[in-house]
Amino acid sequence: MPPDGPLSGVTVVDLTRVLAGPYCTMVLGDLGARVIKVEHPDGGDDARHIGPFVNGHSAYFASVNRGKESIALDLSAAGDRTALDGLLDGADVLTENFRPGAMGRLGYGWEAVHERWPRLVYASTSGFGQTGPYASRPAYDMVVQAMGGVMSITGDDGGHPTRVGTSVGDITAGLFTAIGIVSALYERDRTGVGSRLDVAMLDCQVAILENALARFGATGVVPGPIGSRHPSITPFGAFEAADGHVIIAAGNDTLFRKLCQIVGGPQLADDPRFLTNQLRCDHEPDLRDELEQLLRHRSVATWLETLGAADLPCSPINNVAAVVADPQVQARNMAVRIDDPSIDHLLVAGNPIKISGHADPVTRPPAPALDADRAALLGSADEGPDRLRP
Amino acid sequence: MPPDGPLSGVTVVDLTRVLAGPYCTMVLGDLGARVIKVEHPDGGDDARHIGPFVNGHSAYFASVNRGKESIALDLSAAGDRTALDGLLDGADVLTENFRPGAMGRLGYGWEAVHERWPRLVYASTSGFGQTGPYASRPAYDMVVQAMGGVMSITGDDGGHPTRVGTSVGDITAGLFTAIGIVSALYERDRTGVGSRLDVAMLDCQVAILENALARFGATGVVPGPIGSRHPSITPFGAFEAADGHVIIAAGNDTLFRKLCQIVGGPQLADDPRFLTNQLRCDHEPDLRDELEQLLRHRSVATWLETLGAADLPCSPINNVAAVVADPQVQARNMAVRIDDPSIDHLLVAGNPIKISGHADPVTRPPAPALDADRAALLGSADEGPDRLRP
Repeated sequence: MPPDGPLSGVTVVDLTRVLAGPYCTMVLGDLGARVIKVEHPDGGDDARHIGPFVNGHSAYFASVNRGKESIALDLSAAGDRTALDGLLDGADVLTENFRPGAMGRLGYGWEAVHERWPRLVYASTSGFGQTGPYASRPAYDMVVQAMGGVMSITGDDGGHPTRVGTSVGDITAGLFTAIGIVSALYERDRTGVGSRLDVAMLDCQVAILENALARFGATGVVPGPIGSRHPSITPFGAFEAADGHVIIAAGNDTLFRKLCQIVGGPQLADDPRFLTNQLRCDHEPDLRDELEQLLRHRSVATWLETLGAADLPCSPINNVAAVVADPQVQARNMAVRIDDPSIDHLLVAGNPIKISGHADPVTRPPAPALDADRAALLGSADEGPDRLRP
Repeated sequence: MPPDGPLSGVTVVDLTRVLAGPYCTMVLGDLGARVIKVEHPDGGDDARHIGPFVNGHSAYFASVNRGKESIALDLSAAGDRTALDGLLDGADVLTENFRPGAMGRLGYGWEAVHERWPRLVYASTSGFGQTGPYASRPAYDMVVQAMGGVMSITGDDGGHPTRVGTSVGDITAGLFTAIGIVSALYERDRTGVGSRLDVAMLDCQVAILENALARFGATGVVPGPIGSRHPSITPFGAFEAADGHVIIAAGNDTLFRKLCQIVGGPQLADDPRFLTNQLRCDHEPDLRDELEQLLRHRSVATWLETLGAADLPCSPINNVAAVVADPQVQARNMAVRIDDPSIDHLLVAGNPIKISGHADPVTRPPAPALDADRAALLGSADEGPDRLRP
């Protein structure tokens, strides 16, 4: 059962697979929505077969499908279509991430669904969207990271384009879809009418380009990878200390002046090359050299202590083990365990939306086995839509 | 004025600065919410002073503040506090991203605000959250990208940690805050009571680690950068062709078999090293060698045509100029212009949440000058809260 949250009482019938859609419905589930995952009887969600595996459970699948219910339905079979209809009778939201057109061929296109269930919010997440010349093309995260420009601005300074190490193509599409769904539910409660969302992974990559798009428009210069620094704020990045790199982010003149003082180079703050943020950006390599000459005298740990005591934004570069062990991450309940002894060393992310009046559980329920909730769901469908509500 | 959308009628009083908060309220504005940006009279939002500049307008500022209204208020001055109170009388949402504690010192902490405006949703976005040992520390995007582990899994195979080229630390916090706000509005309409959101940039970085966290939990192996490929799906990444790299994402066995056929290596599909996705991940370097030997015979353009015709997920690696010129990005209205002749070559991202029943404008309104809407806002505040509603 989903945790208590602002979306308690909302039922989502979830036809999505692999990542963008399931990530979206995971977020909705963390906020209290009931998510009924409808999977194909032939192996279910592809993500069930992506490793690594823990006691036969895909860790990949488990991490984004915790707390959902599962029913296996073949939507080309009449009996199973009737079962889906029963689920939709009691649902507030339908989510799908098939290739555009697939839902229509199954008889569940937007128009048909909207006519029969006018209050239902219908959310489609796809690679390229329901419209435009690429609408029917297949996509995965890697494709939209490359096509949408994020790879072209990620990587070493002057180096080659690099994939973001996490699936931001899927995840951002999941987040934008979640925003759209809740907004449509908000409107639905006022108008009585559900609407149709069309979120494309490619569009979401463009949406997160933020200042790269603005810089290109403003200057005509095509942004490329610039390593671990900020394109428009300096000093703001990874700097070499005696035993590794330390992150320092001096986002304005006051912080820069303080930084110069602390690292033992107060004259840098008055250097004509470094007087304003724009000048510092123009002379970034010089400033980096000057700062690193000073920073190399001490260890990362020493600098973190010194800079932290002076209230300067700074950080180590943590690997995932350090993240999980971090006292703040622990205090915020952000790396949590699955509530199932057979996979209890599986780590999943907590809910980053902390909200007053609702608990933030310290474990998460397990992901369902394929078709685990068939009997309960079909029983309740037989008894009418009201039984589907928690 | 904001576009028509599912959040039309919602008024947000927005005290946020720079990026995470303003990105959140930009998304809400794109969905129809009215966003009243309250800035400090001394220069306003720091982002106004971050380049590049077009005719004196910060492109950085303009891209995330389009369509908002601005009023300059000094919250330590009694008259300006009265003005803010007037704005809050007509508001549905208050957003802020000060350091935890700052709002309380100004007399606008959650408890005080909730007592006076019980229906108001109060959203705080911060570097580390309102709780935990780091709560009072300063943060910027760079800090949380490093501390939250995303940098540690981004970069060349076996290489050093690399910053994601876009501010995913801010942006994901903005998106999760937007989800929280709309969810709290949905609940508020049912219960009559607003709630308090506490979203931390660091928490959101953990939330987007997805399978890196699960892999670490499952295997104990600390994930590192692996270049432009997927950790758990193979072949899925950038491959060398005759004149550059082509992205190929063969996410399952069927696609892999088809790929082998097309590139002229059908025997690879039956090679015992490559029979399953798990085996292909285990033998990724071998498979890459085999595929690149074949791919290097033709150009990227030729492969895109051939692979595309066979319906295999593939892509070029686009730079930002190519993204803006892409026919799909254009058809989806995702790189749009500002509706102001003085900066009309400024490009901003469109709204990736396409929703039925609401238009998707082909331009965006400009960002406000500092304090541009003072007279209208104070006039309306004097006349009572109802005048604040559009």
